[in-house]
Amino acid sequence: MSSTRARIAIDAMGGDHAPADIVAGALMAQEKWDVEVLLVGDPDQIEAALKHHHSKLPLSQIIPAEGTIEMHEEALSALKRKPKASINVAMNLVRQKKADAVVSAGHSGAAMASALLRLGRLPGIDRPAIGAVLPTMKPDSPVLVLDVGANVDCRPKFLEQFAVMGSIYSRYVLGTSEPKVGLLNIGEESCKGNDLAIRTYQLLENHPEIAFNGNAEGRDVLTGKFDVIVCDGFVGNVLLKFAEGVGEAVLQMLKEELTSGLQAKLGTTLLKPSLMRFKQRVDHVEHGGALLLGVAGVCIISHGSSKAATIANAVRLAKEAIDNQVLERIQSQYQKHPQPDEKVISG
Amino acid sequence: MSSTRARIAIDAMGGDHAPADIVAGALMAQEKWDVEVLLVGDPDQIEAALKHHHSKLPLSQIIPAEGTIEMHEEALSALKRKPKASINVAMNLVRQKKADAVVSAGHSGAAMASALLRLGRLPGIDRPAIGAVLPTMKPDSPVLVLDVGANVDCRPKFLEQFAVMGSIYSRYVLGTSEPKVGLLNIGEESCKGNDLAIRTYQLLENHPEIAFNGNAEGRDVLTGKFDVIVCDGFVGNVLLKFAEGVGEAVLQMLKEELTSGLQAKLGTTLLKPSLMRFKQRVDHVEHGGALLLGVAGVCIISHGSSKAATIANAVRLAKEAIDNQVLERIQSQYQKHPQPDEKVISG
Repeated sequence: MSSTRARIAIDAMGGDHAPADIVAGALMAQEKWDVEVLLVGDPDQIEAALKHHHSKLPLSQIIPAEGTIEMHEEALSALKRKPKASINVAMNLVRQKKADAVVSAGHSGAAMASALLRLGRLPGIDRPAIGAVLPTMKPDSPVLVLDVGANVDCRPKFLEQFAVMGSIYSRYVLGTSEPKVGLLNIGEESCKGNDLAIRTYQLLENHPEIAFNGNAEGRDVLTGKFDVIVCDGFVGNVLLKFAEGVGEAVLQMLKEELTSGLQAKLGTTLLKPSLMRFKQRVDHVEHGGALLLGVAGVCIISHGSSKAATIANAVRLAKEAIDNQVLERIQSQYQKHPQPDEKVISG
Repeated sequence: MSSTRARIAIDAMGGDHAPADIVAGALMAQEKWDVEVLLVGDPDQIEAALKHHHSKLPLSQIIPAEGTIEMHEEALSALKRKPKASINVAMNLVRQKKADAVVSAGHSGAAMASALLRLGRLPGIDRPAIGAVLPTMKPDSPVLVLDVGANVDCRPKFLEQFAVMGSIYSRYVLGTSEPKVGLLNIGEESCKGNDLAIRTYQLLENHPEIAFNGNAEGRDVLTGKFDVIVCDGFVGNVLLKFAEGVGEAVLQMLKEELTSGLQAKLGTTLLKPSLMRFKQRVDHVEHGGALLLGVAGVCIISHGSSKAATIANAVRLAKEAIDNQVLERIQSQYQKHPQPDEKVISG
C-alpha cells in the first residue's frame, strides 16, 4: 500500500442503494484503480456490507458518522442540524487533508451545500457548477455540460467561469486535446438568445483561455461538435433530466415496435447483445457522476439511483481529477488572469 | 365544393423544398380533409409544380405574391422591405377574411412577426407562444410544449396565458378530455426553480381554468404524465431542438451497434419494418408543425425541412383548430375572466 495513492472519502450512507451498493462500488474501485477508499457512515452497517462481500478493510478506512441527509430534507438546515451526518464528515476529511476527494450519491443539494460550507470556493470563482458528461454521436468524444443544477439564476461572469473550468476538466480528465466550447443558445448568431446568452457571448468571444466555437443549439449537444457546453443551471438541469428520460422513452417505444410480429421477435433475439451495448451507451448510470467544479476540493455527485458500477466509475473520475491536478490548474488560471469585468465588456 | 370548407392559405414559397413539396402537400391535404387550399407565391412556379403532379387548381386558388423571406434575413426589416412576400400575402388573406388559416414552412421568425404585424394579438394575450407537439411513452397521448421559441425572456403572466391557451388547444384539437398542465422546472416542490418558475407556480396553483398538476421535470416531458407543459421560449427551444437531435443520435448509436457482427446484420434485416415504424414515431416531421397561439388567426409554422406529408399534416392541424373554434374559445376565456395580476398574487 503506497502512501501516494489517492484517498477517496465515500459517503457510504447516501443514495437509494446505500450502504450495500456504495460499499460494493468502493471495493470494486479500490481493486481496479489503485486508490484508497474511506467509507464514511455507520460502522455497523458498513461492516455488515463488507461482510456480505466477504471483504475486510482496516479500521482506518471506516470513518464513523451519525445519520445522513434524507432526500426530502431542506439541505442547509439539515446540514446544520446534523453536523456529524456522513456527507459533512466526508467533506471534513478533505478539509483536514485526510482525503483527496469526496464521492456521494446522497442528497445532491446537501453535497453541494456541505462542500461550499466546509471547503469553500476556489479563489476567483463566484459560483461552483455541476458538470455532467454525456455521450455523443462521435465515439469516445463525450460532451461536458455545465451547469446542470447548482445555479438557477446566473450572470454572464458565472458562465464564463464555467467555460474556463469546463475546458480544464475536459482537457485533463476527459483527455480532449483542445476542448471546443459552446454556449447553449437558440440560434447560431451572436445576436440570438435571452439577455444572459447575448451578454455571455460577448465575454466568451476572443477569450484568451478557451477555444470558443460559438452558440450550441439543442440539436448540437449530442453531435460531438462541442466538447464543453455552458448554460445556466435551470436550462442545464432540464436538459440533463430530459436526456435521461428520452433514452428510456426511446428504448420503450423501440421495444413496443420490436415485439410486434414474429419476424421482429426473432430479430430481437439475434440483436440482444447489440441492444444491451446500446443501452449501456445511452445509460447515464455508466458515467459515474457529475462533477462539482469550483469548490476547493474534488467532489463527485453521483445519481441517487447509483449502483456499484456507477460508484466505482465515480471514484475513477475523482482519481483522474486528482492525478491531473484539476483544482490547481483552475486556481492558477485565475491567478494568472484576473477575471474580465462583464460590465466593462458588455457595455 | 361547399363554401363552408375551411380555407387554408399556404405559403408555397417557404421552406427547403418549396414550392414542389409544399404544393404536393397542399394537394394531399385538399384531397384528404375537405379543405380548400390557397397557394400563395409565384404563379409560374406554382403552376409548374401542379403540372408535375398532373393536377390543376382553379385560378382562384393561386394567389400571386412576389418573393419570399430568405432564411438568413432579419425578419422585421425583410418583411417591411418585401410587403408582397408570400408570407405577408398569406397573412393578409386571413386579415381580409379570405382565408381561415396560414401554413408556412418558411422563415419561422418572419411568420411570427408577419402574424403579429398583420393579424395582431388576441385581446387579453400579452405574448403569442409557439407550441410544439411531442410524442410520449403513452400511445396517442402527445404532449404540447409551449413556448418553444417566440419569447426568450418571459414574465409569469405570459406563462399563465400559455397554460390557458395550451389547455384549450389540447382539449379541442388534440382531444384530451381534461388536459393536465405542468410547469417545466428543476424539482417537484413549489419552492424549486428560478425566479420565473417560482412566481409562475403561484399563478398556476388554484387557477380556475386549468388543471395544474405541478412542476414537470425534464424527465417527465415524454412520460405522458402531462398534456401541456409551459416554459419560457429559451428553455423550450433548447428542449425541442435537443429532442429532435436526440432521436437522430439514438438511431445512429443504435445503427452502429446493430451493424457490428453477422448476427446483428441478420437481425437488422428482419427488424427493418419495426425500425422504420419507430423512426416515424420519433420523427418530428410526422407532427405537422408548431402552432402560433395567441395571434388573431390560426397559424401553423412547419419545420423548414418539411416535405409533402408534413405540410398535409400541418393543414389538418389548421383545419382542426378552425373547426373547433380554438381562437374563439381563447378569446371568450379572457373576456369571462380578466387576467389575474401577478404582482398582487405573488406578492
